[in-house]
Amino acid sequence: MKKLLVIKIGGNIIDDDNKLSSFLAEFATVAEKKILVHGGGKLATKLAGKMGIEQQMVDGRRITDAETLKIVTMVYAGYINKNIVASLQKNGCNAIGITGADGNAIQAHKRLKGQIDYGFAGDIDAVNTSLIKGLLEQGNDVVVAPITHDKNGQLLNTNADTIAQEIATAMSGLYDVSLVYGFEKAGVLMDAERDETVIPQIDPANYAELKKENVIFAGMIPKLDNAFAAIDKGVKKVIIGKAEQLGALIEGKSGTTIVRRET
Amino acid sequence: MKKLLVIKIGGNIIDDDNKLSSFLAEFATVAEKKILVHGGGKLATKLAGKMGIEQQMVDGRRITDAETLKIVTMVYAGYINKNIVASLQKNGCNAIGITGADGNAIQAHKRLKGQIDYGFAGDIDAVNTSLIKGLLEQGNDVVVAPITHDKNGQLLNTNADTIAQEIATAMSGLYDVSLVYGFEKAGVLMDAERDETVIPQIDPANYAELKKENVIFAGMIPKLDNAFAAIDKGVKKVIIGKAEQLGALIEGKSGTTIVRRET
Repeated sequence: MKKLLVIKIGGNIIDDDNKLSSFLAEFATVAEKKILVHGGGKLATKLAGKMGIEQQMVDGRRITDAETLKIVTMVYAGYINKNIVASLQKNGCNAIGITGADGNAIQAHKRLKGQIDYGFAGDIDAVNTSLIKGLLEQGNDVVVAPITHDKNGQLLNTNADTIAQEIATAMSGLYDVSLVYGFEKAGVLMDAERDETVIPQIDPANYAELKKENVIFAGMIPKLDNAFAAIDKGVKKVIIGKAEQLGALIEGKSGTTIVRRET
Repeated sequence: MKKLLVIKIGGNIIDDDNKLSSFLAEFATVAEKKILVHGGGKLATKLAGKMGIEQQMVDGRRITDAETLKIVTMVYAGYINKNIVASLQKNGCNAIGITGADGNAIQAHKRLKGQIDYGFAGDIDAVNTSLIKGLLEQGNDVVVAPITHDKNGQLLNTNADTIAQEIATAMSGLYDVSLVYGFEKAGVLMDAERDETVIPQIDPANYAELKKENVIFAGMIPKLDNAFAAIDKGVKKVIIGKAEQLGALIEGKSGTTIVRRET
């Protein structure tokens, strides 16, 4: 199968013009087919502030009321997505930007109200692999904004990590997929404060051991559980590390690579 | 050749939620392959007002300074484009939304400074027909926001009428193209105040006569000149009329159809 990279970048890259521009220049040099999923960064919060719309966050997740949905649609699908696409085009990378609504790429439903009402937040139901494959095979790299839809006219704000994971697992039936999570740290660290303590490779056997010995920073456990879930569903490997070192991450020279158990 | 419709809608539809929603429901029922080019409407001006950014207009064209470019990118490529796409998806129409930057669909250059400096306004150099054909043949209808790029990282605000015309002429080598201009009037009128005076068909012969006799409202002359220019470049017909009557426009039962001279 052909290789496909699904790469997620977050606010630490998006909010820094210099880092973003050098990341995109490096991204453009990667020969494999690739999908870039971007988060939102701080711009939506800033814009909401300018417009006098109060933002509510719970556990780092934005509560998306109707006005906030307008703002994130404008900022994520408009400003950020199109500037990334224009910058990749400048670097000779034939990028096309989409949301989950475009070509029904990612269908979701409005998150059911639990203890917290997240408002217009989307939980993903299905990824349209034939649409995405078509775009890739037509020679485009795909840039995905973290907005989905419910196929009933409603746009939904959706977590970019989850989008990256769902796309990676869905596409793994068609491609040999590596999922790269850009992150503010050098990878999974033994000591959260020291980048040099990065664990280069984790498989299910040493993961169990590392957890047992409380070696891994607690905040990383959900990320790692998600990484193993992706691998169980067919993703070949998950790489966690600094997006600024994209080439080294892909080559396994930087970051933490999460793989299946060797058998 | 297969038929292709290129349909442009402007502020009179975009700014009216009810009109937009019924237009999109009708658009979704049109069987032919189609491209929808939308203008911006008043939302960008409103948003600029909320953010305290003054808007300058000259001859109905917006002067696009850096802050205004941010706003139109957010509003046109984000809010309007993605809501149109989500609404079409609801209506069973497999829409995909793009700007000129996506897949390098429309390459432009920043308008040269003449007597007026329009700022980040784009004049179109090339339409990527193979990208657009690929999207159409993959089963998508394409929704185009009036933002282009210069292939050097710069997004550019671009007139939607011009985009529709350039796409229609470029695609006329590959499809049998009809270009539909949605408009606030019923078509080209003998009396600008009375919709019932619409001229059903204009060809070069009667156009010359109508102009000579000063029958046509002066404001329509540039639109008609553009329509004939499109026809000279291969577009099969240009239809001008109310977007609210899309089906009737396409069938020639409403609006003004501009055609080549019968020979």
